[in-house]
Amino acid sequence: MKKRPDIHAVIMAGGSGTRFWPLSRKKTPKQFLPIVSSKTMLEETAQRILPLIPRRKIYTIANGEQTRAIGRLLPDVPRENFLVEPKGKNTAPSLILATAWIYLKNPDAVVVVLPSDHLIADHPTFLRKLKAAAEAAASEEALITFGIPAAFPSTGYGYIHYQKENAKRYSGDSFYEVKAFKEKPSYDTAVEFLRSGEYYWNSGMFIWRADVFARKMERFAPDYYPYWEPMLDALKAGSKTRLGATFKALPAMSIDYALMEKARGVLVCEGNFGWSDVGAWSSLADIWEKDEAGNAVKGESVIVDSQNAICYNPEKLTALIGVKDLIVVNTKDALLVCRKDLDQKVKEVLEALKKKGKARYL
Amino acid sequence: MKKRPDIHAVIMAGGSGTRFWPLSRKKTPKQFLPIVSSKTMLEETAQRILPLIPRRKIYTIANGEQTRAIGRLLPDVPRENFLVEPKGKNTAPSLILATAWIYLKNPDAVVVVLPSDHLIADHPTFLRKLKAAAEAAASEEALITFGIPAAFPSTGYGYIHYQKENAKRYSGDSFYEVKAFKEKPSYDTAVEFLRSGEYYWNSGMFIWRADVFARKMERFAPDYYPYWEPMLDALKAGSKTRLGATFKALPAMSIDYALMEKARGVLVCEGNFGWSDVGAWSSLADIWEKDEAGNAVKGESVIVDSQNAICYNPEKLTALIGVKDLIVVNTKDALLVCRKDLDQKVKEVLEALKKKGKARYL
Repeated sequence: MKKRPDIHAVIMAGGSGTRFWPLSRKKTPKQFLPIVSSKTMLEETAQRILPLIPRRKIYTIANGEQTRAIGRLLPDVPRENFLVEPKGKNTAPSLILATAWIYLKNPDAVVVVLPSDHLIADHPTFLRKLKAAAEAAASEEALITFGIPAAFPSTGYGYIHYQKENAKRYSGDSFYEVKAFKEKPSYDTAVEFLRSGEYYWNSGMFIWRADVFARKMERFAPDYYPYWEPMLDALKAGSKTRLGATFKALPAMSIDYALMEKARGVLVCEGNFGWSDVGAWSSLADIWEKDEAGNAVKGESVIVDSQNAICYNPEKLTALIGVKDLIVVNTKDALLVCRKDLDQKVKEVLEALKKKGKARYL
Repeated sequence: MKKRPDIHAVIMAGGSGTRFWPLSRKKTPKQFLPIVSSKTMLEETAQRILPLIPRRKIYTIANGEQTRAIGRLLPDVPRENFLVEPKGKNTAPSLILATAWIYLKNPDAVVVVLPSDHLIADHPTFLRKLKAAAEAAASEEALITFGIPAAFPSTGYGYIHYQKENAKRYSGDSFYEVKAFKEKPSYDTAVEFLRSGEYYWNSGMFIWRADVFARKMERFAPDYYPYWEPMLDALKAGSKTRLGATFKALPAMSIDYALMEKARGVLVCEGNFGWSDVGAWSSLADIWEKDEAGNAVKGESVIVDSQNAICYNPEKLTALIGVKDLIVVNTKDALLVCRKDLDQKVKEVLEALKKKGKARYL
């Protein structure tokens, strides 16, 4: 009988987005907000894995300021599990640091990498698949990822091209060999991807055994591998100075680009568990409860002759009259009213605010 | 040489409307709000007549609660000039009371009746016309009113049908004989009125000599006249009980319906002084300053791809993206987002709130 894999989770809680402005701000990105439910997305991320991974094996990685917020949101996770990036350098350096930290505890440990700002609606399926992926990671010399069944020809996600035949099976789930990672495609290419039936969306979730990760880095990420042993040494020695110096030497790059796209021996499992990256206000139309006219409202409201509105105004009354396909977000100091199909233009608002010197709204 | 008329002004500050909800509330109607400028409409109404009428001859009439608010807004008006309606009974009883009060000071006094919630853009013309109207009222056995040049075939205003020929002249202004007051017409009738060139909008502003008012009432308002002498007596005696009893006996009716429509000897002067009754949020599109795309915004804002929006959010930042012909009003406890041509449906919101027992928002 095989040993049960020793699963550890790394929640990537850094990074900041602007797409939920004015609710999200530079200092309060999406993962620290109760957007989807009454809990923050970070809390949801941690709680949904508890049936499979105990708190003492849950880690976060973020910058120092964010880590203080994380500590308040996850009070039951040991403080030493809150890993701090010495510098913001995209995901590759952070995940090398986190994997090294877990490697020191157990080189055979399976590391599950989870973004902190994704929604997963179907917890039982997610946990079943995660368990199967951990088994696969424990047994195979492979990096593993979840691929999301593409719901439409999105030009906003990366894609994973996989080999339909000869899948490996773990706990009843298929693990397909990855042929290639594809950057965000043009619309026409995305349509082709969908037609072929051989592409998933890249979920940004990864599962790997710590020692396998190191070996893959050695073969496929020669810019990074020279820093692996120094990082282990610095962590072992508990030397912040040496850790910082090593970390800062790592090229700033996403883990996708630094390793996943370049490596052979990558497997993908279908992530059909109600995934959403909750990318912008408009995505909440598919997540929040709606009235008969398709209006999704957080907060007290009176709605007259209005359809498909998305409204976040939890502290005040909202009255909507005759509006359609509109996003309305009312926060303590700012109000956004935006046509639903133009929510990407929130960026223009932020640029204008920056130009005007209104940093307090960013 | 004729004596200068002794002009007194009565500002009608009672009444409450719902059309500026959620800014206006039951207890804070339009006239107590800084909607048009940084001053309340009541303050604007009082200040614009000061070049012609001294503070000691400015009166207000409203209910007790409103009168406390009036006292705070008009601290320089003598307290005894704040007349209190013993009961809400529409405008006829209130104006009989106010005219009687002024009659006791001087039966020859000219009483100028002004709504407290109208905008007048052109103060010099207004003052010139008001002076001319006061001269006419001092000299003629007539009730006088201003008629607003009809800008479009409104079905929301009453109309005044006048006799173009044989106008009386005072200080260079024409005073036409009124043929009839017309209630709010159908659209087709309104179009006919406009075509004929013989109709003004009813402004709700009146000018009369106190003793002429009494005699007109005697002849044309037989339901009211029996209470005139008792009211004078009650006021003279300073008896609140007798005043209340007399007031409550008066039929509840508008002055238009009770007297103006029935009287002969009514003159109308063209009120071409930039009048607006500021009837609803959408009317502010013609009053507030606008950007090049026609957006009128009170408060800090960033506007992207939006046209003809009206936005009141003085205490927060507003970001508009891709919206058109929209009203956005953000107050301390309620937010309204309303299609511009549906602002009359605010009533439906208030009804819904009443039904839900949410009286605090009314």
